[in-house]
Amino acid sequence: MITTTHLDVGQQPSGELARVPVITVEGHPGGPTVYLQANIHGAEIQGNAVLERLLALCRANRPRGRLILVPMANPIGINQKSGEFTLGRFDPISGDNWNRQYHFDNADLDDFCQSHLSSDDATLCAAFRQRLKAQLARRLASPWGLKTGQLLALRLQQMTVDADVVLDLHTGPISARHLYVPDYARANAHRFNIPLNIVMPSDFGGALDEAAFSPWWQLSQRLAALGRELPMPVDAFTLELGSQEKLDVNQAERDAAGIARYLESQGCWPEGTHKVAPEPQYACALANYRALYSPCAGQIEYLAPLGEPVPAGTPVARIWHYERLGQDGPLYTEVTVPTDAIPVLHFASANVQEGTELYKFLTHTEAL
Amino acid sequence: MITTTHLDVGQQPSGELARVPVITVEGHPGGPTVYLQANIHGAEIQGNAVLERLLALCRANRPRGRLILVPMANPIGINQKSGEFTLGRFDPISGDNWNRQYHFDNADLDDFCQSHLSSDDATLCAAFRQRLKAQLARRLASPWGLKTGQLLALRLQQMTVDADVVLDLHTGPISARHLYVPDYARANAHRFNIPLNIVMPSDFGGALDEAAFSPWWQLSQRLAALGRELPMPVDAFTLELGSQEKLDVNQAERDAAGIARYLESQGCWPEGTHKVAPEPQYACALANYRALYSPCAGQIEYLAPLGEPVPAGTPVARIWHYERLGQDGPLYTEVTVPTDAIPVLHFASANVQEGTELYKFLTHTEAL
Amino acid sequence: MITTTHLDVGQQPSGELARVPVITVEGHPGGPTVYLQANIHGAEIQGNAVLERLLALCRANRPRGRLILVPMANPIGINQKSGEFTLGRFDPISGDNWNRQYHFDNADLDDFCQSHLSSDDATLCAAFRQRLKAQLARRLASPWGLKTGQLLALRLQQMTVDADVVLDLHTGPISARHLYVPDYARANAHRFNIPLNIVMPSDFGGALDEAAFSPWWQLSQRLAALGRELPMPVDAFTLELGSQEKLDVNQAERDAAGIARYLESQGCWPEGTHKVAPEPQYACALANYRALYSPCAGQIEYLAPLGEPVPAGTPVARIWHYERLGQDGPLYTEVTVPTDAIPVLHFASANVQEGTELYKFLTHTEAL
Amino acid sequence: MITTTHLDVGQQPSGELARVPVITVEGHPGGPTVYLQANIHGAEIQGNAVLERLLALCRANRPRGRLILVPMANPIGINQKSGEFTLGRFDPISGDNWNRQYHFDNADLDDFCQSHLSSDDATLCAAFRQRLKAQLARRLASPWGLKTGQLLALRLQQMTVDADVVLDLHTGPISARHLYVPDYARANAHRFNIPLNIVMPSDFGGALDEAAFSPWWQLSQRLAALGRELPMPVDAFTLELGSQEKLDVNQAERDAAGIARYLESQGCWPEGTHKVAPEPQYACALANYRALYSPCAGQIEYLAPLGEPVPAGTPVARIWHYERLGQDGPLYTEVTVPTDAIPVLHFASANVQEGTELYKFLTHTEAL
Repeated sequence: MITTTHLDVGQQPSGELARVPVITVEGHPGGPTVYLQANIHGAEIQGNAVLERLLALCRANRPRGRLILVPMANPIGINQKSGEFTLGRFDPISGDNWNRQYHFDNADLDDFCQSHLSSDDATLCAAFRQRLKAQLARRLASPWGLKTGQLLALRLQQMTVDADVVLDLHTGPISARHLYVPDYARANAHRFNIPLNIVMPSDFGGALDEAAFSPWWQLSQRLAALGRELPMPVDAFTLELGSQEKLDVNQAERDAAGIARYLESQGCWPEGTHKVAPEPQYACALANYRALYSPCAGQIEYLAPLGEPVPAGTPVARIWHYERLGQDGPLYTEVTVPTDAIPVLHFASANVQEGTELYKFLTHTEAL
Repeated sequence: MITTTHLDVGQQPSGELARVPVITVEGHPGGPTVYLQANIHGAEIQGNAVLERLLALCRANRPRGRLILVPMANPIGINQKSGEFTLGRFDPISGDNWNRQYHFDNADLDDFCQSHLSSDDATLCAAFRQRLKAQLARRLASPWGLKTGQLLALRLQQMTVDADVVLDLHTGPISARHLYVPDYARANAHRFNIPLNIVMPSDFGGALDEAAFSPWWQLSQRLAALGRELPMPVDAFTLELGSQEKLDVNQAERDAAGIARYLESQGCWPEGTHKVAPEPQYACALANYRALYSPCAGQIEYLAPLGEPVPAGTPVARIWHYERLGQDGPLYTEVTVPTDAIPVLHFASANVQEGTELYKFLTHTEAL
Repeated sequence: MITTTHLDVGQQPSGELARVPVITVEGHPGGPTVYLQANIHGAEIQGNAVLERLLALCRANRPRGRLILVPMANPIGINQKSGEFTLGRFDPISGDNWNRQYHFDNADLDDFCQSHLSSDDATLCAAFRQRLKAQLARRLASPWGLKTGQLLALRLQQMTVDADVVLDLHTGPISARHLYVPDYARANAHRFNIPLNIVMPSDFGGALDEAAFSPWWQLSQRLAALGRELPMPVDAFTLELGSQEKLDVNQAERDAAGIARYLESQGCWPEGTHKVAPEPQYACALANYRALYSPCAGQIEYLAPLGEPVPAGTPVARIWHYERLGQDGPLYTEVTVPTDAIPVLHFASANVQEGTELYKFLTHTEAL
Repeated sequence: MITTTHLDVGQQPSGELARVPVITVEGHPGGPTVYLQANIHGAEIQGNAVLERLLALCRANRPRGRLILVPMANPIGINQKSGEFTLGRFDPISGDNWNRQYHFDNADLDDFCQSHLSSDDATLCAAFRQRLKAQLARRLASPWGLKTGQLLALRLQQMTVDADVVLDLHTGPISARHLYVPDYARANAHRFNIPLNIVMPSDFGGALDEAAFSPWWQLSQRLAALGRELPMPVDAFTLELGSQEKLDVNQAERDAAGIARYLESQGCWPEGTHKVAPEPQYACALANYRALYSPCAGQIEYLAPLGEPVPAGTPVARIWHYERLGQDGPLYTEVTVPTDAIPVLHFASANVQEGTELYKFLTHTEAL
């Protein structure tokens, strides 16, 4: 029922192959194919623990469908240390974010729609998946090669093409748990039981969740314009499950239950199989998810508890200027939030430049 | 005639302000305003020497117009060492390329065109520059702040708004001299006397040259659609003047002469004031400027001399796999170029990953 | 009474001088000269807040003697970001620890002792300070120059030569507060009110505290061998005041009071001027201050609360091997402590290599 | 005759083992055991090519004795990229130089000498090797573990204990070929045909060559003091074979021949088997091998050709201060060499801090 294989995602200068484990849970027939990935950013290790706990849930209670679990998805990033910390957010050579290099190409979408307009849904979807696979294979076979980050991303992405659900497990820097929800998929998002939610439009920006749903979203939109309705066949979410460089096995257990509860809505288990203690949930549109950048440099005290609403004008940080110690004038700059907001995450260091992203906030929140 | 001021471009955690020198050469009346910048990437220092030599040409022979010289444009990047080398290509915190964060926003272009359709060219251009300045000021005044790289980029960009010519001096990794030429500005590009030329479309991709010409290009296109012809008021080029981490004062003198020779065409000096020994010139379209990525990892011998045409199938690198020493089978992988090509640059290290950008090539070359 | 000057400690590639603030509190006559420095490692910012609070205590209650406060002592290290964190523990070019490059040279100690054997204590000490100054000046004037880290260290060290007390404020990675106590100076160490104490021999290992006391210790030993007793004229301590990358102004206030309470014993204030809530204190010899290195790589749960004694055999960490998920066999390695111990600090990341320093422990503890 | 095995030298956070290839050439009986290692610093790849060429010489002409070839000795360092370059000179976590962590402990030497004073040379040497092996095994079995760099170093070092000759292949930054020669082993050093030579005392400083010969040197000295002469049983050299980040297969062939020619003197081949075109050779004592540190920061032109003698006072670099462009006063600082000298290597970047090691020089040269 549970099998493990390995995927080679890149070769290192030493000659060693970077290999990613791929655990397949073959469940009872009749359920969806679910792809779950963790740790594409090297320091974001919490998702691995969540996958471990989710596998335990599968062992305790065999699901319907197929779950593909991919922990430790980026060995290159995981191994990239710089000082004590893990510099695994971007390719150390190019600066390219490891989660912005997935493939998306809908240039031929009109042709595709025209030629499959009379197919039934299943045939149409199968053809569309076939087209996505062919695109990926073609790019990976380019005689000019591909960048390190694209090789990693596309090799992982090949495993997602047949999935009905794609979940990408991340963390923030110092962060409350939050969730990126594509607008069309709001209905079931609350089931993850994640308190802070960002509702995204359905465009492609390079990340895995977008790479998974955007082709389908555009397909359904184009078909709608041609007078045909196609229910969205794929759901995809990015879960941010706390802070980087931390491992919290107890919280992982709770988040695995939240994921399982969501998967109940997709048919993996009967409704109500998994219980969670509900948390209050807030949501805002992506355009209202705002970063606050530091107005000056210095040594910073973070003042705003994550996850708790604060009114406009609240001081959220005090930036000290110890190089002015002993001089006249104020020794710190107080930073306030411009609107009513809920702090989601803050920077991981107390030592900041002018322009450092200090905080991200939900603003103009609404019910999920 | 020559004055120096300083621009604060960011504050460092230690409290020190990162300051950029701004040298203004006030020439005879009647010439263009020319903005020249060097070293936005920390390791690309050769442009500073070119500006130094160009200033000497101005001293020897006072130009018409105004030249604004900005060497050492990115003190944050220049100071970012990692091992012996300078890690100044991207923000060490975010991975953002320092040359991809300039401002561009033409969302209100239709409105602008409609309201200035009856203005004369000078009035229209002055209004457009005013609009660009207002956009930059508005973004810099955001209550949410801006990213470190945007603060740097936009503060520099403010100095370019009044310029008729913008030249951004870069280098490649290990590189022959090459030039990015906007398609509309081909006519005078040969005057720089740079052997390898990439002809770009006129879209915005985040770099300074594009930020300088794209707003104007779109303006002229939109006006053309409305039946009005506006000659492009701004020229902008990115010059790649050799290899990073090198300083070659003699070559800088030659490239300063090439720049001066180009500026003759813009009215800074009488034609023929500056002489260069002409070099053969090749050009290709940006779409034909191709990167070759490494098909495997290893230790590499670069085989193709830069700047010299090679036919399709030529071995351009040998990638050794010394970890296989003593085993059967080939000890190296030979990499060939898929089409006829001219190698422009190669990677700076002999130690590569799978997917490292090994070379960039002109292909399908044409006359400049 | 309070004056601020600046010391240039190095020039950066951009041309900017790295400058360190030097705040001098000129107290009532008759007290010691005290030198306090913070933030020689770029991420260890808490000491700056302690100096700020100590300056407030001086303002509230003018001390006897002279206090020299040097916050932000290493602007080069403070500005060295790598990802979100501060890579300021070692020179990014050479890997040299910024706190291992101070000067020490007692090669001529025999000659010095012989020629000053008949001097009184004050004359002898003045001559010895003069000799230290001359050594530093000579090294700084070398025609071959000095390394970046030596330039920084020696320029700071010049300010310590006249001090009777030298306090160097650091932090650990994730760390309980702890103190390095030279063996000869145990008597007053408890006054800092720091719970965990490491009693050091009096040799030179490169750090500032050692550079401050070792010359004098060897002098007193050599004189003792010649039949003369010289009370140690200099005390020096390294205080580790919590975790790097954190700023805790409340804790800083408490630690400033502890320092002031220690300085009472040196004559800066009358006994009992400053109050602290006493904490239990443990001590061990440096040889019993043990690092525990990771027996394998993986993603780690730290299990042992810092500062609390644990018996031999206690599991202190669980190292997960998520790359083995879905395979048979144990998914984690449990790490136990080999002896009875008190955990002082642990590594700052949950992502470790084989051989990463996981923890440091006091073992064989005794009364301070 | 040629066999390959692998040595695990460390586990990476991703779970992958860092493995080092070990190629053993079993030659005709009667010759020495020779251990050759390359690439302990990640960017110093040229030694791998030299080992490859040396293996070809062994295939062409079977040696006497046993050669153990260890290319790619530090996979962790080889994979550590930062920007384009390889940051493999020191552990990215701790800053520890990978070539300063070998084991040396002669504390029990007196006891050893006393108990083996009457043994014959072969017995004594075997016992000493046994003692070294036991020391290494004991340290590697410590219940407290060992640091990443020590694990790597000691695991490699275990392979050297039985060797009669240890050769460690390095490169400089931008460098002429040079050789570290232990004083006692000068007689045959010229056979390597390396132009620049540094004659070292026989102390331990942490590097592999010292770790290989220092225990034996101290043994022979101690025995001499007890009236017994023991010819040095081990030779060890560090070869610096050009510049980092470069691969020059032709030069590798010449240096492999030089090594083979040296090994003729140790009995691996008959005298005269391998030919080299002799190069002029210079030598100086380690104390006269001088680094020149930059007196200021800036952008640098290196003026002195490597390997060619220059008289005292020669300008060897011009450090430009482009941030002063347009201002009065000199735009560069000229750096001169304080004594007659031969430049051996210079810094790899044109962008330097105050205190950057600009050059290293042989001074007070003598015949090798």
